[in-house]
Amino acid sequence: MTKPSHQIKDIIVTPIAVTDPPLLNCVGVHAPYALRIILQVVTEGGVVGVSEIPGNKETEDSINSIKKELIGLDAFQPNQILRTVSEKLPAKNETDDRGGTPWDQRIVVHIFSALEVACLDIMGKALNCRVSDLLGGTMREEIPFAAYLFYKFKGAGGKWGYEIDPTATGWDKARQQEATSTQGIIDQAIAMCKEFGYRSIKLKGGFFPPEKEVDDTLAIHREFDGEMPLRYDPNAIWSLETGIKFARVFEGKLEYLEDPVRGQENMSTLRKTVDIPLATNMCTTSFKDLPNSIKVHSEDIILSDHHFWGGLRSTMELYKICKTFGRGFSMHSNSHLGISLAAMAHIGAALPEFDYEFDTHYPWQSEDVIVGGKIRIENGCVNLPTGPGLGVEIDQAQLQKLHENYLGCGLTKRDDELEMQKIDPNWKVVDTRY
Amino acid sequence: MTKPSHQIKDIIVTPIAVTDPPLLNCVGVHAPYALRIILQVVTEGGVVGVSEIPGNKETEDSINSIKKELIGLDAFQPNQILRTVSEKLPAKNETDDRGGTPWDQRIVVHIFSALEVACLDIMGKALNCRVSDLLGGTMREEIPFAAYLFYKFKGAGGKWGYEIDPTATGWDKARQQEATSTQGIIDQAIAMCKEFGYRSIKLKGGFFPPEKEVDDTLAIHREFDGEMPLRYDPNAIWSLETGIKFARVFEGKLEYLEDPVRGQENMSTLRKTVDIPLATNMCTTSFKDLPNSIKVHSEDIILSDHHFWGGLRSTMELYKICKTFGRGFSMHSNSHLGISLAAMAHIGAALPEFDYEFDTHYPWQSEDVIVGGKIRIENGCVNLPTGPGLGVEIDQAQLQKLHENYLGCGLTKRDDELEMQKIDPNWKVVDTRY
Repeated sequence: MTKPSHQIKDIIVTPIAVTDPPLLNCVGVHAPYALRIILQVVTEGGVVGVSEIPGNKETEDSINSIKKELIGLDAFQPNQILRTVSEKLPAKNETDDRGGTPWDQRIVVHIFSALEVACLDIMGKALNCRVSDLLGGTMREEIPFAAYLFYKFKGAGGKWGYEIDPTATGWDKARQQEATSTQGIIDQAIAMCKEFGYRSIKLKGGFFPPEKEVDDTLAIHREFDGEMPLRYDPNAIWSLETGIKFARVFEGKLEYLEDPVRGQENMSTLRKTVDIPLATNMCTTSFKDLPNSIKVHSEDIILSDHHFWGGLRSTMELYKICKTFGRGFSMHSNSHLGISLAAMAHIGAALPEFDYEFDTHYPWQSEDVIVGGKIRIENGCVNLPTGPGLGVEIDQAQLQKLHENYLGCGLTKRDDELEMQKIDPNWKVVDTRY
Repeated sequence: MTKPSHQIKDIIVTPIAVTDPPLLNCVGVHAPYALRIILQVVTEGGVVGVSEIPGNKETEDSINSIKKELIGLDAFQPNQILRTVSEKLPAKNETDDRGGTPWDQRIVVHIFSALEVACLDIMGKALNCRVSDLLGGTMREEIPFAAYLFYKFKGAGGKWGYEIDPTATGWDKARQQEATSTQGIIDQAIAMCKEFGYRSIKLKGGFFPPEKEVDDTLAIHREFDGEMPLRYDPNAIWSLETGIKFARVFEGKLEYLEDPVRGQENMSTLRKTVDIPLATNMCTTSFKDLPNSIKVHSEDIILSDHHFWGGLRSTMELYKICKTFGRGFSMHSNSHLGISLAAMAHIGAALPEFDYEFDTHYPWQSEDVIVGGKIRIENGCVNLPTGPGLGVEIDQAQLQKLHENYLGCGLTKRDDELEMQKIDPNWKVVDTRY
C-alpha cells in the first residue's frame, strides 16, 4: 500500500475575538467579544485541516507547548495523536476540572477536540469524502437546530459595546435589542423564528429570579399556541427546593427542562419527584460522569458538545451510550463560528436517529472566519456542507482581522462575572442563587 | 466534490464448508465441517469488499431475500445500508433470539456484520487506507491472541472424519489427536504454544463433569508453572451452586473464568460470592443486554464478537462502553477463516488500550479462502495486514472448492447435538448439565 504523506508538518494556532452581544446567564453577561481558537493543521502533503474551540490563553499555551511533539505524527491516526497529548500533558489530565460555570473549563478535552476535528477534516479532504461519512455515514442532509433565546442587555457587542447600530434591520436589528422584559423575549423569539424558520425554542435563563423567568417561558409557550417544542435552562442556579417547585409548573408544557439544579444527585431527585424530562450539559459532561448518571438516572437527555467531549467520534460514542441506556441525545452550544457549526452539522448528519434539534448560538455572532461568510440556517436547518472534510475553508483575511480583535480586546479568558461587575459592582458568581 | 461511484452493483453470497475437527463443548461435538458464508460486495467502481460470517441457510436466504433492496446503495454509507436491512427484515428483527447455544443464533446482527465489514473493506480499498485507520487509527501492528484448547475426539474432521492423517507432523499432527485425558489436553497446550508462541491459554470446557475439567485446568496451570495467564470456559452449563463451588477453586489462579453459569443474574450472584474475574460471551451479547449487565455487574470482561455485535464499528462502540463503565474487553471466536481473523486483527489494532489476548479457533482450521493461504500467528500475534481495507483477497478457486464441500456435506446449520447423537444416541442438549 502506498502511504500518502499525512504527517503533520505544522499546527497554526490563532486566537481570535468575535463580536458577541451582552447575553445574560447565571454567572453574568457576555463580554463584548467571545474568544475562540482556530486551529490549522498542515500535513506534509499540503492538506490543511481546520477546527475551532473556545478561546482561552491557557488552552492556547498548552497546545503550543506540545506542538513539537505532534509535528511528524500521522493525521490519519487521531487516536495516536490523542495518546501523545495525554502523555505530554499528564499534569493537566489530573487537574482538569469542569468548574461550575455554564461553560466547561477543562483544557485537555478541548485540545483533543481541536486536534481530532482537524484530523477528520484532513482525512475527508485527502480521501474526498465528508466527515459525516467518516462517522458511519450521512443519514440526512438537513440538520435541525433550535432557536436559542437569551435575556440580554441592549447592544451589539464588540466595538459597539452596548450601542445599537441604527442602520440594522430584520434579525440583525432584533439581535441588538434589549430583551429583559417578557415582551422583549417574545419579540426576540418571533424575530428569530421568522428569520431562521426554527421549529423549536430554547430560552437560556438563570439570570432573573425564577418567578419571572418561569412566567416568561410560559408566555412564550402561549405565544406559539403551545405548539412549539420549548426548552428552558436556568443553568443549575436553583436550589433543589426551588427546582422542584418550578419544575412542577412546566409539567406537560416543556419538551425538556435543562439543568434546573446542580449535580447528578439533585437532578435525580428532582426527576423522581416531578414528571418532566430533564436534560443536561452541566452534571454529566464526560465519560467518567456516565456510570453514576446511568445509576441515578440524573437526566433523560444528554446534551453533548464535541468541544468538551473530546471530538466528533467521542460524540458519536456518547450517542451510542445514550441509545444503549435509553437516554435522548442532542448538542449544546457556546458562542461559536462556522467551523464549529459545520462540525456539529456533520454529527447531526451521521446520527442514525435524530432526537432533538441542536442548540446553537450561531445567529448571535455577526462575523465568521469561513470563506463565503456565515452558513445559512433555513427552515431551522443547516444544510450539510457538500465539500470534502468539514466542507468549510478559512478566509485568511477575516481570520487575521479577528485575531487583531483578539490582540486589541485584552481578554484572555471568558469571565462573565467580571463583565457583569462593570454594571453591578456587587455581582458575585454563586453556585445556587435562588 | 466529485463523488466516486461506490454504489453497490452486486452482492455475491457463497456458503462454504470448512474442515473442522471433532471439538467438544457443552452441546456436543463439532460436525466434520464448519459452515461459513463469504460475502463479496462489488461496487459500480469495481471495488470488491469481502466479509465472513457463520454459515446458516436461514442467514444466507435472508441476505439473498433483501439483496435487490441493497443494490444501488452507497457502500460508503454503512449506516444507511443497515437501516435498509432493519426496515426490510422487520419480522426477523422482532424474533431474533440469541438462543442457549455457545454460538449466537440471531440473523439480523450477523447480516449487519457481513455488510458492514464488506463496506469498510470497500472504503479502505477505495481510499487506500486500512480498516483499522477507519476505526480511529492503528495503535499497534501486532495483535495478541490466546491459545484456544479444546477437548476433542480423535480426528481431523472434513472428509477424514474421525481419522488421523498419518503423514501429518507438528501442530498439524497434534491438531488431529484425541484430547480427552489430562495428558491429552496438556500435550495439546504444549504443541499449540510451541507452534504459535501464545502467551495465554484458554480451555473450552463444559463437556465433562466439573471435577475433571477443573482438575485438568489446574494441571495446565501447574504445567506452565502458574505463570501462563489461563482462562477456562464451561459455557454456562453449570448450576449456580456448582459454579460457586468450583469457581472458588480457581481464586487467584485464573486470568478469568468465562460463563461459569447461565444468565446475568446468576453471573452477578457468583461474582459477588467468589473472588474471581468473570468474562462472558453468553449472558451479555447485545447492546440491549448492557443496561442490566451494568446494573447487576454480571461480568468483569465482555468478550465481543463482531459477527454478532453488528460489525467492527459496533465492536469499537462496545469497547468504549466497557472502558466507560469499568469493564474489560476482549473478543470471542467460533470456527473461522482468514477474513474474520483479519477483521478481528483490525479491531485489535484500533483499540486505544488492549486488555486481553483475543480468542481464535483459527489454528483448528486447516483451510482458508484467502490468497496466500493461512495468516501466520507468531509469538502469539497476528501481524496486521498491510494492504488497504482488511488487507486480504479471496482465492476464487479455493472459495469454489469450499463451496463444493458445502454442497456435498449436506449441512445447512450448525447442530453439535445431532453430531454428538451419532456417537451417543442418548445425548441431549440441556441448559444446565452439572
